[in-house]
Amino acid sequence: MMEYPLLVHRFLERTSVFSPDKEIVTREGDGVHRYTYADLMVRSSRLSNALAGLGVGVGDRVGTFGWNTYRHLEVYFAAPAMGAVLHTINIRLFTEDLVYIINHAGDKVILVDPDLVPLLEPLASQMEMVKHFIIMTDDRGFTTTLSNALIYEDLLSAASDAYSPVNLDENAPAGLCYTSATTGRPKGVIYSHRGIVLHSMMEAQADTIGFRERDVVLPVVPMFHANCWGVPYSSAMVGANLVLTGVRPGPEVICQLFESEKVTLSLGVPTIWVGLLDYLERSGKTYDFSSLREIASGGSAVPISLIQAYKEKLGVKMVQAYGMTEATPVISYNRLNSHLDDMTEGDKMRLAGTQGVMVPGLEMRLVDDEGNDLPWDGEQRGELLFKGPWIASEYYNDPRSSETFIDGWYHSGDIASVNADGYIQIGDRVKDMVKSGGEWISSVDLETAIIAHPGVLEAAVIAIPHERWVERPLACVVPNADSQGKLGKADVLDFIRDRFAPWWLPDDVVFIDEIPKTSVGKFDKKVLRERYKDHHPES
Amino acid sequence: MMEYPLLVHRFLERTSVFSPDKEIVTREGDGVHRYTYADLMVRSSRLSNALAGLGVGVGDRVGTFGWNTYRHLEVYFAAPAMGAVLHTINIRLFTEDLVYIINHAGDKVILVDPDLVPLLEPLASQMEMVKHFIIMTDDRGFTTTLSNALIYEDLLSAASDAYSPVNLDENAPAGLCYTSATTGRPKGVIYSHRGIVLHSMMEAQADTIGFRERDVVLPVVPMFHANCWGVPYSSAMVGANLVLTGVRPGPEVICQLFESEKVTLSLGVPTIWVGLLDYLERSGKTYDFSSLREIASGGSAVPISLIQAYKEKLGVKMVQAYGMTEATPVISYNRLNSHLDDMTEGDKMRLAGTQGVMVPGLEMRLVDDEGNDLPWDGEQRGELLFKGPWIASEYYNDPRSSETFIDGWYHSGDIASVNADGYIQIGDRVKDMVKSGGEWISSVDLETAIIAHPGVLEAAVIAIPHERWVERPLACVVPNADSQGKLGKADVLDFIRDRFAPWWLPDDVVFIDEIPKTSVGKFDKKVLRERYKDHHPES
Repeated sequence: MMEYPLLVHRFLERTSVFSPDKEIVTREGDGVHRYTYADLMVRSSRLSNALAGLGVGVGDRVGTFGWNTYRHLEVYFAAPAMGAVLHTINIRLFTEDLVYIINHAGDKVILVDPDLVPLLEPLASQMEMVKHFIIMTDDRGFTTTLSNALIYEDLLSAASDAYSPVNLDENAPAGLCYTSATTGRPKGVIYSHRGIVLHSMMEAQADTIGFRERDVVLPVVPMFHANCWGVPYSSAMVGANLVLTGVRPGPEVICQLFESEKVTLSLGVPTIWVGLLDYLERSGKTYDFSSLREIASGGSAVPISLIQAYKEKLGVKMVQAYGMTEATPVISYNRLNSHLDDMTEGDKMRLAGTQGVMVPGLEMRLVDDEGNDLPWDGEQRGELLFKGPWIASEYYNDPRSSETFIDGWYHSGDIASVNADGYIQIGDRVKDMVKSGGEWISSVDLETAIIAHPGVLEAAVIAIPHERWVERPLACVVPNADSQGKLGKADVLDFIRDRFAPWWLPDDVVFIDEIPKTSVGKFDKKVLRERYKDHHPES
Repeated sequence: MMEYPLLVHRFLERTSVFSPDKEIVTREGDGVHRYTYADLMVRSSRLSNALAGLGVGVGDRVGTFGWNTYRHLEVYFAAPAMGAVLHTINIRLFTEDLVYIINHAGDKVILVDPDLVPLLEPLASQMEMVKHFIIMTDDRGFTTTLSNALIYEDLLSAASDAYSPVNLDENAPAGLCYTSATTGRPKGVIYSHRGIVLHSMMEAQADTIGFRERDVVLPVVPMFHANCWGVPYSSAMVGANLVLTGVRPGPEVICQLFESEKVTLSLGVPTIWVGLLDYLERSGKTYDFSSLREIASGGSAVPISLIQAYKEKLGVKMVQAYGMTEATPVISYNRLNSHLDDMTEGDKMRLAGTQGVMVPGLEMRLVDDEGNDLPWDGEQRGELLFKGPWIASEYYNDPRSSETFIDGWYHSGDIASVNADGYIQIGDRVKDMVKSGGEWISSVDLETAIIAHPGVLEAAVIAIPHERWVERPLACVVPNADSQGKLGKADVLDFIRDRFAPWWLPDDVVFIDEIPKTSVGKFDKKVLRERYKDHHPES
């Protein structure tokens, strides 16, 4: 066979020829900006040439600090094609972390959306390696205190549109993304061209997400989060239309785009989908979602009640995905395997509440504390380990790598059971388990049960210190609009009492306005644990 | 990312765990033999160990000479897992070619189906390297003059079922297949583990063949032909049921299996599908084909009339694929791209008559005689060149490689036009064109037109020498059952007269019982050209 490297920019080469008129649509102001894959090819070529003119070379890191837009997408292809590394910076990071990762990555340039410039301005003096800030705008009057700031569209106009990708090894880095750590600063994951190409080839398979040319894909997942779940690359590979949500998208914007662009596939974290459903119920508005073939939900466990609500109230199929920054990110997808067709509807819905089956191409183990393999019986819980060509082998320049990457396996830190059919049921992060009197209590199991209560919008269960049992569970509950002030501790506990051993039941329930979220929209239990560390249950 | 080699036997590892009870069904005698992927894993492990016991090591060639059966399938996984090379030998080769390729490949063992043993016995003394013949049977009383013959099931019973794949580089050879040459002996193509894995990841994509776990796949294409189009590996990757047609399958057997096994996907050359339709019409029998989601037809151009007949008479969707031994083998697949949805049904049917669009992951060029790129306008014809990770870079130990693999491109020898949407329309092999008075006439265009005549079963157009025009076309036509003896030259020529320039029309039409076929079921025009080289048209 030919020695032919797997390179991500080849996707765009093919699609700009075979489906040149397929569209990239970006929400902009009150309308949308539209252009084609052929345009994307020309503009990303211009951007490569412009960056080269600024001294960006093979292996240099190109930071982005932006929303989901066509300009951001152009960097997704321009940087890898020239052998540079696309570093997508999470715009919701705390300032110390921001400075840390930009310096740690050694970003040579940073492309930043105009409305996010104020977040960088006060920090710019601490960013040692950054030679230029490129404002992703055509507004030549844009003013900023950032030194060496350039206007994106000026750069593009002045640059050649010659497409001249450099020769690269497929193991060359194409992307870099940082993931929050349990302790300390975020940790960086380098994505190789090879890893991303293989991940896209997997994501387009009929049994996984199944990206296809006919899809109109709207990633709600931000482009600064875990490769945008591979959406830009997989969409370009097959030639699917892309719909990008622009600046600060809310549920209304997403609903409108679903309807107007006839979106077929959307992807995002459960928090988004909870919010969207809540918006629909509060506003009473209706939209035509009939084009949606599927919503992929992942990033944290998806409550069955949410899947059910989407099915029954909106007629939309929600499918769980499971993955992480270290895995490019997709590990598993929840399709019903054919030998389970005869299950009852109830059992099928329960199965839809799992994270599905590992996709082809990876290897997985379930192990106990000592690293011994555990049976896949749907009962025994252990840590999930993974291996494969799109799984990271280390954190970028980080001594903490050795805690996570051991003997060739990535230790995910996720506690799960796996049933006999291979369906993964994520319990908790190791750090999220409640250890009461030497026995484990699953906070996720409790949360899933509580959230099924019709008066509950969100729920998080955390461990609080206890003199006798060391730790005990505390439920933090956000009532929905209708049950504000009406929902009581007994309502919640009675609702779940039959489902758990008595000692699993939370010692107390606190009602709050909102569950604090991390920069990527997951529950931030660190904040809750801190807030309630001295909490003493009534009675 | 981890250094994780792409190895074909990993497919079986995963499926034997995640879908252990999915079935491999083989027609045997009047019934079927059934077992599971879990069984396949155990038995292919036993076979690896048995072969190792016979001295087969890393890099050694393991020949197979057999029909589509579960034992043949076991070799597909056993050989690569131990680092050996599966050499599938075409059972329809002429004896001289058989001896040549077995010696050229240096097969160390050959696994042979009992009923094919008589083909090898008279040749065995010329097979220099073969240490053992393994008869794929459980019949301990089987007698043969082959020296060092062993009984397959004896070997398996005696072997350990421990699965211990060797460590391999992904570029290590996994398979070897010979393809017939225009001149001289067949040429060998080595398939690497990497090439096969990437090809399977492509074949499972929703926009290509889309192998999925729910599929029940019946390859009519023989397992000795071009990797069986990847079917064994792609099916194992996703965990699809496989239906294997056993010894000498005819149209009736295929129809029965479609119905009884609820086959969803079948793949084979057009000749097979012509024969199957003819069988149904002659016999008047009907079968339930409602489970079939798609038939993939490739290996030679598929007449639109055949696609139409399957649609209208059987309600079955036939999709054209295009590929070749040198390409593992799939190059293109015919899906309607979404921007063409508004075409008329007639235009859609005409487009279905093309070979579709190159799959993601490859590169392609259309060039003239001097190697200049030609426009993709649906008009201009040139040779197709390809490049990619599952395209061969050479023929195995063969000086003829330099004629075909030039400057990093595989020169397919196929003459085609490509339309503006990238749909490939194969015309002829370079050698099949008729050059009349310095102008090219396409034999394939003429054949396609003639075969649309309701009284015609098959048609081949060849060049015959002509004093004035150098070459002129001759049509060789097989009438169908109803028009035997009734169809005349004028009927055929009048039927196509309006569609071609007068000088394109064949000088004569000869009626024959059968078009001679090559060992892989394609028209063997070499034989016809020889037969009619002195033919003088009646005028």
